[in-house]
Amino acid sequence: MDSLDISLKGEESSYQIYFGDLPKLILDKKVLIVTNPKIAGLHLQTLLGRVQAREVYCHIIPDGEVYKNFKSVESILETAFNHHLDRKSLMIAFGGGVIGDMVGFAAGIFMRGIDFIQIPTTLLAQVDSSVGGKTGINNAFGKNLVGLFYQPKAVYINSQFLRTLPQRELSAGFAEIIKMAVCFDREFFKVLENLNIGDECALLAVIQKAVSIKAQVVREDEKEQGIRAALNYGHTFGHSIELQSGYGKYLHGEAVGMGMVMANTLALALGLINQVEFDAIKALLEKFGIPTSYAIKNVESFYESFFLDKKSLNSRIKFVLPQGIGGVCFKDDIPKALVLDILSEFA
Amino acid sequence: MDSLDISLKGEESSYQIYFGDLPKLILDKKVLIVTNPKIAGLHLQTLLGRVQAREVYCHIIPDGEVYKNFKSVESILETAFNHHLDRKSLMIAFGGGVIGDMVGFAAGIFMRGIDFIQIPTTLLAQVDSSVGGKTGINNAFGKNLVGLFYQPKAVYINSQFLRTLPQRELSAGFAEIIKMAVCFDREFFKVLENLNIGDECALLAVIQKAVSIKAQVVREDEKEQGIRAALNYGHTFGHSIELQSGYGKYLHGEAVGMGMVMANTLALALGLINQVEFDAIKALLEKFGIPTSYAIKNVESFYESFFLDKKSLNSRIKFVLPQGIGGVCFKDDIPKALVLDILSEFA
Repeated sequence: MDSLDISLKGEESSYQIYFGDLPKLILDKKVLIVTNPKIAGLHLQTLLGRVQAREVYCHIIPDGEVYKNFKSVESILETAFNHHLDRKSLMIAFGGGVIGDMVGFAAGIFMRGIDFIQIPTTLLAQVDSSVGGKTGINNAFGKNLVGLFYQPKAVYINSQFLRTLPQRELSAGFAEIIKMAVCFDREFFKVLENLNIGDECALLAVIQKAVSIKAQVVREDEKEQGIRAALNYGHTFGHSIELQSGYGKYLHGEAVGMGMVMANTLALALGLINQVEFDAIKALLEKFGIPTSYAIKNVESFYESFFLDKKSLNSRIKFVLPQGIGGVCFKDDIPKALVLDILSEFA
Repeated sequence: MDSLDISLKGEESSYQIYFGDLPKLILDKKVLIVTNPKIAGLHLQTLLGRVQAREVYCHIIPDGEVYKNFKSVESILETAFNHHLDRKSLMIAFGGGVIGDMVGFAAGIFMRGIDFIQIPTTLLAQVDSSVGGKTGINNAFGKNLVGLFYQPKAVYINSQFLRTLPQRELSAGFAEIIKMAVCFDREFFKVLENLNIGDECALLAVIQKAVSIKAQVVREDEKEQGIRAALNYGHTFGHSIELQSGYGKYLHGEAVGMGMVMANTLALALGLINQVEFDAIKALLEKFGIPTSYAIKNVESFYESFFLDKKSLNSRIKFVLPQGIGGVCFKDDIPKALVLDILSEFA
């Protein structure tokens, strides 16, 4: 079984990411598996066959970004208390990014923090959200505005779960993979341009590559003081799309894909990328079936919602923009008028 | 101005505890002060005169343990979002332990963690809860069961705030001071026996001594893997008293005082302390006006509530018991029958 080491500053928060078939997990403690109805139906039996623990409980949360809230986290905690989980117990996040983010948050605040592991079942969660310890929930003000940096004890990535993943969710996952290629790795971008989507073996290699880029970035900057913010490329615009369209209309990866096109339009206007690069990124998004156009209803309120972004400091919006393909930069001095001009192109 | 250094493992989480008049706090950022109506009425003007920041907002929470819940934390977060606080902003906890615990928790999860400082206004918060980074809330299952280890950036301890503190709350604070003397410092216990309660200067010295003991324990064991658990002396019983009597009937320190007497009764039965020591501790509690008797309504359900305690692992209750005066030990192998016997003495 391949694995990748995530060594962070504190020894406590280092962990392994494993690739391949799920091994037998022998855990001399109480375990709470949290999943959604769909994954429970498809794969819970498989997971239960792999987990050997003192006591195993399951908690099922409705599927979807709209349920990524305090109420769901409280329901996880309630189940944990009802079954008398203690400080040595373990939670397992078994599902996509929504499940992973909420279980990490719940584990982080249950009795001031217990262990959890990530077993991501969507492409997006496998390449992005399960690695790096960002946990949290959405609220009326925006996405992921409440949460913790709280690292899992291990991540198990098994591409077999992707066989049952709907095409639309697979596409959404590719948005995050393309994001990492655009920001950090021109060669990887070319690999994606040539990828045969049906080739499971090639897909595996792509997942490992994306995770290794993510892991490298997280190792360098766990708490997002610097370079980690690059992973938010497409997200400032994407979060506003999700907020304005109502969580649930678009998948997170879809919103990020559309957000990348908006960011690229701004980057093009600033001369950070050229038209050929702009077109190549858009073409790659489209190759994987990611939507690239979004109609902004109200440009001014779309702009205002940027200020709720965690990257906006002192009333300045920090834009993450590509610099060619394989490079990335931050800009917090872009005049409002220019941003509104760009947004108007999408109105 | 005297100060005490708390150096924890990660550099990030080291901070100073200052004693004396509140200095001018010059903060080039947005600041959210969280307090309760009583402290706001008595001291907010003083604090506002000391804080010089880009923008200052206040959020007021009803006073009392019964409001130490998710709803209050959400209300703090809502105010923070409404005023567009960002990752560089600061929260100030201005009040007793309830305010401090909730603001620490809210700051810890707002945008995955922003800075906060503690300005405790009760004796209990000054000597105990403001130092050490335990934050959290109560829920239907018990006290402080949801929260974080999240250290403040600084603690400012000013005994002038105690002049307006009701006698009952002053007494409750002494319960935690006595707790530290019993567990760690026989000489300090004698100092307390001889203390003239009206002597503000002597009180100041007592506060500094108690904080220095607490700081030493936290430095050694931030995450309560070992010795820090000693600070829960009286708390296993005390938490059950608070849960069963309904939060709000007793002050936390009062419940801890009664819990210490219960723990001592068990320690006496086990030969860990003798009758003279038992009587001396009880007399000291009574000297400071702390209640020492509590009538348990239902012994069995009182016992059951121990299992919700965070210190209970694998269905074993971990009792913190005095070993003479100035010593402490942990016992997780006490037969249920003996514990029920002890509890029956209070029924």
